[in-house]
Amino acid sequence: MKNALGREIPEQIGERELRPFKGAFATTPTAQKASRPQKTVKPGENKVLSSIEEAIEATGLSDGMTISFHHSFRNGDLLVNQALDACARMGLKDLRLFPTALFPVHEPLIEHIKNGVVTRIEGSMNGPVGAFVSQGGKLKAPGVLRSHGGRWRAVEAGDVKIDVAFIAAPQADPYGNANGIKGKTPCGPITFCTVDAMYAEKTVVVTNDLVPYPAYPFEIQQGWTDYIVVVNEIGDPESIASGTLMITRSPTRLKIARLASEAVRASGYLVDGFNFQGGAGGISLAATKFVGEEMAKLGIVGGFAMGGGTRLLVDILHQGLVRVILDGQAFDTAAIESLREDQNHVIMDPGQYANYDSRGCSTYMLDAAFLGATEVDLDFNVNVNTHSDGQLLHGIGGHQDVASGAKMTVITIPTLRGRLPVIVDSVTTVTTPGEVIDVIVTERGIAVNPRRENLKERFLAAGLPVRELKEIKKEANRLTRPPRKPIFGDEVIALIEWRDGTVIDTVRKVIGWE
Amino acid sequence: MKNALGREIPEQIGERELRPFKGAFATTPTAQKASRPQKTVKPGENKVLSSIEEAIEATGLSDGMTISFHHSFRNGDLLVNQALDACARMGLKDLRLFPTALFPVHEPLIEHIKNGVVTRIEGSMNGPVGAFVSQGGKLKAPGVLRSHGGRWRAVEAGDVKIDVAFIAAPQADPYGNANGIKGKTPCGPITFCTVDAMYAEKTVVVTNDLVPYPAYPFEIQQGWTDYIVVVNEIGDPESIASGTLMITRSPTRLKIARLASEAVRASGYLVDGFNFQGGAGGISLAATKFVGEEMAKLGIVGGFAMGGGTRLLVDILHQGLVRVILDGQAFDTAAIESLREDQNHVIMDPGQYANYDSRGCSTYMLDAAFLGATEVDLDFNVNVNTHSDGQLLHGIGGHQDVASGAKMTVITIPTLRGRLPVIVDSVTTVTTPGEVIDVIVTERGIAVNPRRENLKERFLAAGLPVRELKEIKKEANRLTRPPRKPIFGDEVIALIEWRDGTVIDTVRKVIGWE
Repeated sequence: MKNALGREIPEQIGERELRPFKGAFATTPTAQKASRPQKTVKPGENKVLSSIEEAIEATGLSDGMTISFHHSFRNGDLLVNQALDACARMGLKDLRLFPTALFPVHEPLIEHIKNGVVTRIEGSMNGPVGAFVSQGGKLKAPGVLRSHGGRWRAVEAGDVKIDVAFIAAPQADPYGNANGIKGKTPCGPITFCTVDAMYAEKTVVVTNDLVPYPAYPFEIQQGWTDYIVVVNEIGDPESIASGTLMITRSPTRLKIARLASEAVRASGYLVDGFNFQGGAGGISLAATKFVGEEMAKLGIVGGFAMGGGTRLLVDILHQGLVRVILDGQAFDTAAIESLREDQNHVIMDPGQYANYDSRGCSTYMLDAAFLGATEVDLDFNVNVNTHSDGQLLHGIGGHQDVASGAKMTVITIPTLRGRLPVIVDSVTTVTTPGEVIDVIVTERGIAVNPRRENLKERFLAAGLPVRELKEIKKEANRLTRPPRKPIFGDEVIALIEWRDGTVIDTVRKVIGWE
Repeated sequence: MKNALGREIPEQIGERELRPFKGAFATTPTAQKASRPQKTVKPGENKVLSSIEEAIEATGLSDGMTISFHHSFRNGDLLVNQALDACARMGLKDLRLFPTALFPVHEPLIEHIKNGVVTRIEGSMNGPVGAFVSQGGKLKAPGVLRSHGGRWRAVEAGDVKIDVAFIAAPQADPYGNANGIKGKTPCGPITFCTVDAMYAEKTVVVTNDLVPYPAYPFEIQQGWTDYIVVVNEIGDPESIASGTLMITRSPTRLKIARLASEAVRASGYLVDGFNFQGGAGGISLAATKFVGEEMAKLGIVGGFAMGGGTRLLVDILHQGLVRVILDGQAFDTAAIESLREDQNHVIMDPGQYANYDSRGCSTYMLDAAFLGATEVDLDFNVNVNTHSDGQLLHGIGGHQDVASGAKMTVITIPTLRGRLPVIVDSVTTVTTPGEVIDVIVTERGIAVNPRRENLKERFLAAGLPVRELKEIKKEANRLTRPPRKPIFGDEVIALIEWRDGTVIDTVRKVIGWE
């Protein structure tokens, strides 16, 4: 069947009937959420176990079950590999892995896929695992990629039932309260897996810093935690940045960031109470910096800035340019420190941030947001998952959630990467539909979605270089070399879910290149 | 049928089959929790309504439905009366009222009961409403009293389905985030109704201080809130103390408090990491003060102190005698201010504090707790709900939850109130079973539950006046006048639930006095 964007979607995959994407806000959920397991414990019962193996034993984890992890350590995570190694040693097979995201550090997982320990993955696959899945297709079922809010929704809706949630916790107490902002190796908020802890049949907190009761803030609550395991290492906080955190020095990219900030200034949204999302890519960071400078110049006090938290946002908070930062994850140690110290730097879970099946997302209160793309097309559709060579290399993150919510969603992209074009006729994979994209800013000018005629007029009045997207594309194409076009097989290796649980696109196996 | 304490319990009331109390920790829940309704909203939708009537209309509230409220304004609450008046004006009938607690300020509710607007009440009835129900029996079904943790459990378990939760919020934003510690008239944490907000079909936040987005901390989240109503007044914060907050000046009561603190010192629990609950009655407050002084003298640093928060606990925190205060409610303005300012004064919801159907309660980590009683009996059973005249005048509060959890639960009581005896052969109503009561401290000596021989030995070694409870009773009885004994009718006017959802006792209609 074809979805509303004309993308071909299978009717069914395994036992799962797919719902095709119908539009960014076309779904109205009516069913009840899934129910959570009842649990109890008596006073004095010990919940602390001495190894991951012991926890696997205690939880009754067995073949075919689903295990989950959070990604707050990003490329510094050590728990996924430890836990899967333990599963492999214990002879477990056919597990479904449900991480919030995988990173290059999780490359050892490929062996576990080859050996049948892991046969399904639902979660973002950044880097080698994604490439392996794209080419190898060794999984028993297609991967499922969801946005931050989409994943939360899926757990609450019962689309994914977690058997055992393993939660890397920089600080925990012997009763299972845990947080990510304190401890020996803090990684920032760990509320991505709060929903896992609440809904999983069994929840295991794994920490390298067990402190006397109570560990707080209560990102994870004792009432949800079945077991606590103390290990030597859970993650390397130096690696959480994953190379996303340098403000770009490229003159082209700085130009894009400057244009993006000028677009915000011209939009009419940059007034007292202005709410914005920073983003963590090089261009987004620079644009955030420039917007902060504009706010200071204009004497504006914003409402909230939304993270991933960075030193840049913390500086903006400390300068009094916003009242509060809302953060679901931290991208550097300055943000983590601020989360500990600043009462106006507040942890926000993805349910609050971005859950479609709720009475409101923080993203819906955004005035402006800067987001990236691997590709955009002439319908303003955005791809952040695959490269033009067809390979699945990135997760969705909050892209869909933020783009859906912000009054002005700005995609900041260079027109060329190497000599590959970024603006194409039709994106390889649709992550986020054009209907929620307002502005595309490139070094060759600013394209405005025809749905936003009002913005276009404001930009023109401000003397900004507004151009048609197809003109920008045409100009860029003169400098590109033809991209290495992928040849796709029939096999669907991943589903891209829209945040409401419908399927917006599929990713097919790459069987070669033209 | 008879429950484990020999109390007669009806098998069924209306359509509800009752489960008899079997022991403090005899229940092992196995079912799933109730599921929550799916909700959604589109960006830009307005959720702010201009009156409670409009909210009643919008929620579809109709005859026979269940509405809920929190009690964080205690005797200063203005919302329950406003909302019920609105329901009455709109012709609604047969409502089930599900407050966390009612206070003397809610006396106007009696008219609504007489007029059939309210026909059932599940929640604590402190004062006139309780007395009216005891004597009048005008409700269609018995009231149900639950502990703080028991109420949370009941909602999660699906025992009570809330149609509309009305949440008095000292501060809220237009998207429905709300808290109780800021705003024009802060009342302290409002997390008693967090579970209502999550599980209710419709949630209405009623505030007198609507602030720009976002209002935080997120005690109530936007995602749960259907509507926000702005009114002039929701409560009088000066009244939250309800007269519970003066340290006693009675020499007899000070003696009890002193003995209780000496018992704690002698217990062996008063070492580094000592965790305790303060309580808010006059004797408990004094005992808490004395324990704080002991800790300072001994150079001990405790783990957590558990509220209701008071200036006394805040002082103990500021003196460095405990690492953190965990608070579900505030009993004075000093506690509210500290909740805003002190990072180590942490809001705790009743789910975390006391939910039996969870993998751990904060009360289970208590070393010592001071609690009150209207009566105790020779089996160490405690009554906090009825007076010896049979009238239902008080709620359970956290009594059951704390007593179940604390390693040493100390009941502090005078042996006489006026000339009425407090120690009786068998309590009028069992609120909390003797199996979880460790020590009863009176001005005539300390009685130790035979289950706690070890404590008795320690007290004797410390030279404390340990006596048999029946000896204390006998001595006191010489000074009492015979209490006005109630004559009970057959009609059960209230069920006292144990925190696991079983029925520990019933309260019958008082039809006269001997």
